[in-house]
Amino acid sequence: MRSATHGYLGPAGTFTHQALLSLGDLPGEARPYPSVPAALHAVRSGEVGSVLVPIENSVEGGVSATLDALTYGDPLQISAEVVIAVQFDLYVRPGTELSQVRSVVSHPHAIAQCRGWLDAHLPDAVVTEGGSTAAAAVAVAAPGSRFDAAICAPVAGVSQGLVAAATSIADNAGAQTRFVLVGPPGPLPPRTGADKTTLVCFLRVDRSGALLEILEQFATRGVNLCRIESRPTRTTLGSYCFSIDAEGHLDDARLAEAVMGLHRVCSEVVFLGSYPRADGLTPTVAEGQGDEDYTEAAAWLARLRHPERA
Amino acid sequence: MRSATHGYLGPAGTFTHQALLSLGDLPGEARPYPSVPAALHAVRSGEVGSVLVPIENSVEGGVSATLDALTYGDPLQISAEVVIAVQFDLYVRPGTELSQVRSVVSHPHAIAQCRGWLDAHLPDAVVTEGGSTAAAAVAVAAPGSRFDAAICAPVAGVSQGLVAAATSIADNAGAQTRFVLVGPPGPLPPRTGADKTTLVCFLRVDRSGALLEILEQFATRGVNLCRIESRPTRTTLGSYCFSIDAEGHLDDARLAEAVMGLHRVCSEVVFLGSYPRADGLTPTVAEGQGDEDYTEAAAWLARLRHPERA
Amino acid sequence: MRSATHGYLGPAGTFTHQALLSLGDLPGEARPYPSVPAALHAVRSGEVGSVLVPIENSVEGGVSATLDALTYGDPLQISAEVVIAVQFDLYVRPGTELSQVRSVVSHPHAIAQCRGWLDAHLPDAVVTEGGSTAAAAVAVAAPGSRFDAAICAPVAGVSQGLVAAATSIADNAGAQTRFVLVGPPGPLPPRTGADKTTLVCFLRVDRSGALLEILEQFATRGVNLCRIESRPTRTTLGSYCFSIDAEGHLDDARLAEAVMGLHRVCSEVVFLGSYPRADGLTPTVAEGQGDEDYTEAAAWLARLRHPERA
Amino acid sequence: MRSATHGYLGPAGTFTHQALLSLGDLPGEARPYPSVPAALHAVRSGEVGSVLVPIENSVEGGVSATLDALTYGDPLQISAEVVIAVQFDLYVRPGTELSQVRSVVSHPHAIAQCRGWLDAHLPDAVVTEGGSTAAAAVAVAAPGSRFDAAICAPVAGVSQGLVAAATSIADNAGAQTRFVLVGPPGPLPPRTGADKTTLVCFLRVDRSGALLEILEQFATRGVNLCRIESRPTRTTLGSYCFSIDAEGHLDDARLAEAVMGLHRVCSEVVFLGSYPRADGLTPTVAEGQGDEDYTEAAAWLARLRHPERA
Repeated sequence: MRSATHGYLGPAGTFTHQALLSLGDLPGEARPYPSVPAALHAVRSGEVGSVLVPIENSVEGGVSATLDALTYGDPLQISAEVVIAVQFDLYVRPGTELSQVRSVVSHPHAIAQCRGWLDAHLPDAVVTEGGSTAAAAVAVAAPGSRFDAAICAPVAGVSQGLVAAATSIADNAGAQTRFVLVGPPGPLPPRTGADKTTLVCFLRVDRSGALLEILEQFATRGVNLCRIESRPTRTTLGSYCFSIDAEGHLDDARLAEAVMGLHRVCSEVVFLGSYPRADGLTPTVAEGQGDEDYTEAAAWLARLRHPERA
Repeated sequence: MRSATHGYLGPAGTFTHQALLSLGDLPGEARPYPSVPAALHAVRSGEVGSVLVPIENSVEGGVSATLDALTYGDPLQISAEVVIAVQFDLYVRPGTELSQVRSVVSHPHAIAQCRGWLDAHLPDAVVTEGGSTAAAAVAVAAPGSRFDAAICAPVAGVSQGLVAAATSIADNAGAQTRFVLVGPPGPLPPRTGADKTTLVCFLRVDRSGALLEILEQFATRGVNLCRIESRPTRTTLGSYCFSIDAEGHLDDARLAEAVMGLHRVCSEVVFLGSYPRADGLTPTVAEGQGDEDYTEAAAWLARLRHPERA
Repeated sequence: MRSATHGYLGPAGTFTHQALLSLGDLPGEARPYPSVPAALHAVRSGEVGSVLVPIENSVEGGVSATLDALTYGDPLQISAEVVIAVQFDLYVRPGTELSQVRSVVSHPHAIAQCRGWLDAHLPDAVVTEGGSTAAAAVAVAAPGSRFDAAICAPVAGVSQGLVAAATSIADNAGAQTRFVLVGPPGPLPPRTGADKTTLVCFLRVDRSGALLEILEQFATRGVNLCRIESRPTRTTLGSYCFSIDAEGHLDDARLAEAVMGLHRVCSEVVFLGSYPRADGLTPTVAEGQGDEDYTEAAAWLARLRHPERA
Repeated sequence: MRSATHGYLGPAGTFTHQALLSLGDLPGEARPYPSVPAALHAVRSGEVGSVLVPIENSVEGGVSATLDALTYGDPLQISAEVVIAVQFDLYVRPGTELSQVRSVVSHPHAIAQCRGWLDAHLPDAVVTEGGSTAAAAVAVAAPGSRFDAAICAPVAGVSQGLVAAATSIADNAGAQTRFVLVGPPGPLPPRTGADKTTLVCFLRVDRSGALLEILEQFATRGVNLCRIESRPTRTTLGSYCFSIDAEGHLDDARLAEAVMGLHRVCSEVVFLGSYPRADGLTPTVAEGQGDEDYTEAAAWLARLRHPERA
């Protein structure tokens, strides 16, 4: 039997951990994994029932490791998304003054998002990239640490007995990260009317204008896109696939027809799930694109094909 | 019981009559009608089982009377098409020389197609428009006729005892006219692989770019168009509908999906039939647009929606 | 020197004559021509300075004779348009009652537009097609006429001493006809901000999707179309050109770029003039499509190409 | 005066260094920079004349740090590109056997590209992410290093006195990285006929279908794209800009018109240079899209606007 355990991109204290907790009372234990590939591997192997991983950041963009690990390998399915505001603070050991900080450690994305603040306030500090913001806090708290400060979330700094030397140091206040809960393929979460569907489309390489053709599959059915990211196909330079979040659920007729259209014109379409939108926004359905319009059109077609049955 | 009689745009001796005869042994009697509306009215009222009417001419374009009479009123359905080469000759009473011709009568379309020849050879002749080329031959043959010559088909001139004063006088050699056999709605002729489907699409007036949207419904499914004609909707100046011949049969999955798409985005779609192409050309089906591709995509969608059933 | 005389599709008393008079005090004499080709030939030969001809009718659609005569032959240019409401009455000789009418004569377009009324009120009358509505009135007024009634404009009936047996008999009340004033190529009428441009585009036959490509040339520059009509190219069945009225003036940057784009992707583009719209409507210019946007973009491009000159 | 010095993403021994050397005899000194932002900052401040940085990798995709640092800040311009094959080897201190390797250090991209090999051959090794592959070699060579092995380029391993314990360990043989030479804005490199142009387009957020509109600006002028990458705009989640490489040079008429079109319909377009393609491929110019076609169309337009001057 598949485990009810949930995994997440750890260690404890990461933003992913914080996002997982925001999902409410999840049954079973929450288990940290050291990397996105490791977390998704744990789902594929059946070690955990599902894992939460970051997929998109308002500053850094798509999380390549997640996008690629979802695309290649045994099928996976997203069943939920969580969006949380990201706050970066500078945590130090008690007694350290900001003016004494000579070395800083953090995850590369966190460093990138605080680059302006670092250049302004700690221009001479040596900045080292580490595996996670939580690990950075651990490293600073370690006895004899070679690092003076960590850029991390409050939960991580506090849990290690550190204190904040500066708060909200990200260059873009209001940064957000989006996480997805990933499990094995299974029944889709019920349609809520405010849903999102994630796909990866591989172009037929011998077709010019193939991206335009993909976008037209959506446009013709009145389906808006929330996100589109190109990713290399890992073959030759300039060969791309496209990771897409589209408005709607696979049980919406317009999205289903668009997805079937993609399946026909692409060399491959990887379906990664339909799930409720974190923002709960109900999209406007264009005229003629509702389920009832599709049903009515199919009935009309049947009458045209067989007027003798009417 | 509906009559097995066939009607056509008469009188006897017209190109339409000639086209009807080319259809082979039709059961029952062939009855001429004085106008396209009259012929189509006879089908709608059940007076005849079907009628043959001209729909398109390589020189004059769409036959407005036919396009409009098919579009408005009780539903009709095209079950076959015939294309014939049009030859215009100048017929006179025996004994009349070409140099003696002072007055010419014919159908306006025939006059238009021979305008260059008339200007060159009979610049001073009075040219009168009549109801048909066959009626023109009748008029010239009538005792005390005020017309010296008729532009008509050989069959019409000869049948009235006239002789040709000049042959093949059309400005465009190789002109063709296309005719359609029209009956009441019924089972579609079986798909042959070389078929054509005729439709009329009414735009939603409050949508700019609506024609582009219609064309994209076809393009997205790889359906080519053979003919597209704008026709006024008979309301305000600048309000148009579009009469369309598309490659394929309503039983082709790609055409069926395109037609359902049109039904959803147009204010009205009038279906006028799927029938074998006169030229027998089998169109190339674009990659991913065959029936088997649609079937396969639907099966794939079903698996995505219900992986637990696989 | 070119004549200042104006011509029109005659005879006197036609709707075209009425439309010409609505243009106000035109210098010189107004000369009727028996057909549209004859009228346009008179311009091409320099016999008259310009002619007014019908181009589009809200019921019958594009006037094929005009569209074709403008397209083929020496270049012509439209400098103005007029739209008038069309009223059809039934005119008879004084003393004739409606119930006594056994034969009716008129122009085929007029007959078509009054078909419903004729079927309802004069179902047994013989209806004959003639060259114009004004000529029909002349024919009815002629001594010993074989016609009892003419469908024509009031001006034509009254001028022939006839009386109305029925008025406003068109099936579509509110029918309108649009006329264009055509002269030789010359300086364009100044841009007014509420202009229209008329073109004919010939597709490159070896390109599928060529109509879509034409429409995209307009769409990409935010240019709306007022009218699009397919016309056969007079070669093979299914070969079409497109007669187009687009919003805007050739001096509008967006229209100029679209027209140059058409010139590049079409086998031929026939420019037929930019002129003020009869309805005076000023179109909404899409964001980024104003003249100043084009000017600014060109200046920006120049700076990119030659930053050293900035 | 601006320095003739060249910079690159260092330290010495990186693939970027190797790519710089492949550019041939560059005047002046080659100076390493610790990060892409630092390298581009050095150009912006005038400290160096140009720098070489990686922009795209066939396995990892666009290099976010480069794409973003080019987009934001004072204008920069790409004047050349270099593409090199990437070979990863595992370097150890002399005497270390592969079976003894317990810890590996390298740049995150290198680790990602060798993940399969690591899982297969060193499943129990601790893998640490460092700042560059060259720095990883330095770290392994350091006395008392806590790392047993570095994944790096041969040049880096050898220069540190290390030896290869395994070669060509990347999961995708044939991986390539593309580098661009970036300087301040200046005269464009001359058009060669085999050129590429790099741009960043920001959408107007209030327009749905804005990406489709961008692609149509290229498609309408027959311009193919080599690369398109979405990047977050650093504002809200789901707000994207698009980094694009298009075929052609800003001095090509079709590309210039497309770029001006983008400037009009986008909220902002950042031009990043036109430069010779590394692969030297001359693209096929679509019918009607050559410079001579644009010149001819402009001359035709001038004649239409002012026929009196012809």
